[in-house]
Amino acid sequence: MARRIERNTPKEDGYRMPAEFESQKQIFMLWPERQDNWRNGAKPAQEAFSNVAKAINRFEPVTVCVSKEQYANCRAHLPAEIRVVEIASNDSWIRDCGPTFIKNDIGGLRAVDWTFNAWGGLVDGLYFPWDADDQVAQKLCEMEGVDSYRTEGFVLEGGAFHVDGEGTVMTTKMCLLSEGRNPHLSQEEIEKTLCDYLNCEKVIWVTDGIDPDETNGHIDDVACFIRPGEAACIYTEDQENPFYETSRNSYEELCSAIDARGRKLKVHKLCLPKKAVRLEGAYGIDQIEGTAPRKDGDICIASYMNFLIVNGGVIVPQYEDENDSLAIEQIQAMFPDRKVVGVKTREIVYGGGNIHCITQQQPLP
Amino acid sequence: MARRIERNTPKEDGYRMPAEFESQKQIFMLWPERQDNWRNGAKPAQEAFSNVAKAINRFEPVTVCVSKEQYANCRAHLPAEIRVVEIASNDSWIRDCGPTFIKNDIGGLRAVDWTFNAWGGLVDGLYFPWDADDQVAQKLCEMEGVDSYRTEGFVLEGGAFHVDGEGTVMTTKMCLLSEGRNPHLSQEEIEKTLCDYLNCEKVIWVTDGIDPDETNGHIDDVACFIRPGEAACIYTEDQENPFYETSRNSYEELCSAIDARGRKLKVHKLCLPKKAVRLEGAYGIDQIEGTAPRKDGDICIASYMNFLIVNGGVIVPQYEDENDSLAIEQIQAMFPDRKVVGVKTREIVYGGGNIHCITQQQPLP
Repeated sequence: MARRIERNTPKEDGYRMPAEFESQKQIFMLWPERQDNWRNGAKPAQEAFSNVAKAINRFEPVTVCVSKEQYANCRAHLPAEIRVVEIASNDSWIRDCGPTFIKNDIGGLRAVDWTFNAWGGLVDGLYFPWDADDQVAQKLCEMEGVDSYRTEGFVLEGGAFHVDGEGTVMTTKMCLLSEGRNPHLSQEEIEKTLCDYLNCEKVIWVTDGIDPDETNGHIDDVACFIRPGEAACIYTEDQENPFYETSRNSYEELCSAIDARGRKLKVHKLCLPKKAVRLEGAYGIDQIEGTAPRKDGDICIASYMNFLIVNGGVIVPQYEDENDSLAIEQIQAMFPDRKVVGVKTREIVYGGGNIHCITQQQPLP
Repeated sequence: MARRIERNTPKEDGYRMPAEFESQKQIFMLWPERQDNWRNGAKPAQEAFSNVAKAINRFEPVTVCVSKEQYANCRAHLPAEIRVVEIASNDSWIRDCGPTFIKNDIGGLRAVDWTFNAWGGLVDGLYFPWDADDQVAQKLCEMEGVDSYRTEGFVLEGGAFHVDGEGTVMTTKMCLLSEGRNPHLSQEEIEKTLCDYLNCEKVIWVTDGIDPDETNGHIDDVACFIRPGEAACIYTEDQENPFYETSRNSYEELCSAIDARGRKLKVHKLCLPKKAVRLEGAYGIDQIEGTAPRKDGDICIASYMNFLIVNGGVIVPQYEDENDSLAIEQIQAMFPDRKVVGVKTREIVYGGGNIHCITQQQPLP
């Protein structure tokens, strides 16, 4: 029913990745459960994920994928309008292990199934094994009857790039040139693969992300496209902010960037939480062999940039921080035609990501 | 997306179960893997199931549900045209634990999700636990976006009944009045529930099935409807045949039966294997606590009646028995407009069922 395409590339076949702000059919999520990452049996995280799912479901359909062990619990905690399907995973970051959907101009929908290695494999990956995560994209595509391109040997995660839907892809060198992904490829070869599989002509490189130790600096905590020719980027004037330097550098790099259509990007500033978000309740996280235990007070990668654009809405992280409402205002100003909805997501940040990391959009054909 | 309906019944809502010979959209199957039921790591059974899936796929789409552990193996063994989805189960009898699809006259599709207890629960069920099996119907319905009626407290399996699509349901007393299913209900109350959920007016009771120790005598090894007003029934004149008495009694009971429309049934005879099928290679079946070990020479429940009707075809068990071709001829005579296809299924019979037991049809709306 769903084919695996291993010869051609999407570009050769006329498929492109639409921008997140284009029309969507549904959002996919994974249900969190691993107790060595999520506090207190993952129950607080499950509640936070549920709140994200419900917020999205005000705008469009949501499908949540869950293990057989957690199926009944997940089903019980979500309203009937949200679809629950059984798909096992190693953790719950579907932005990174899920499919990247692509479409053509005559109603065709396909997907790219990137090779996933838990953000660095045996070099600096975050857990082992990652085999179930790496099967998520295939299983979703098979379930939905969507043909997919498998990039065997090319490692990438969906959170590592953004596209504008008009030929431009934005990413970071910190991540895409990392040792744990595609060290056998040059920067030029990586650019070519990105452009072949997303059907783009131009790569805008940001140097660094804000989480070198986790995703090796995914772009989706730093910047995104908000419409063709316009981007948003984190920005702070507080030199004490742990992300001060990276955010300032990224902002400047983007301000001087030219997109595939030759436009100089207009870059909107987005604030950071005023006070660094720090882990609390680390005792509730199972300790396992081979991983440094997490401690109360560890700095969490909390960025308002990790929002999700949906049909008619934007779902934005809230940290119970002084800047929460400023972030909402700034994002509302960027998207005057969408309703901006904040969801409290400290618990998700404790696990290493946020709303964008735990969602994956399927575009309308 | 898919609702659970717990108040009304299908009859009240105008939904009926179509007969198997009505138009179908697809067939669902489960992938066999439990090593305490299937010989030699379930590999021969997996091959036999694959052959059944491929035979059906000549006529209509097939979706195979499989555990996360066997997903990759199952996907690798089936052609791309067959859809594979992750759904855990305790064993592989989707006729019995899967949904019974029902439809109305204006394009609506729903399902009945019977309570499943492994053919007798703690009284004389075949394994424990059966919780994953009992979730299969819900998961399938949720995945496909089909609203379902849950019969909490009413135990039934899809192999225990057949309908003619015109108000008649056929079943056995041995099964439906068994102690392990609904002992709190009288025969009249059971009739009413059957008629309410399948939208029928008349129950034709056959006394016994041929496997008292396994399914407590499912009808689908004994008889079925082949079109409105006509049934098929196993029949032999060989008094040494282990199923001689049951088959003769069933045939006579059906010959005197009147259906919901007041028709006297026309009953077609279907032969049994000439030589009893006996288990071989029992050493390859894992022994577990609490179950009497199976032995070489055990009689298997091999009936040609356990065929599946599909769009334009009939998929029929073959046992490498002298009567294999006679069975094909007899079934071809019953279905002159369908292509009859035989598939070797000794291996499936070793596990306790056959083609009808391992399949579940979804009708076209």
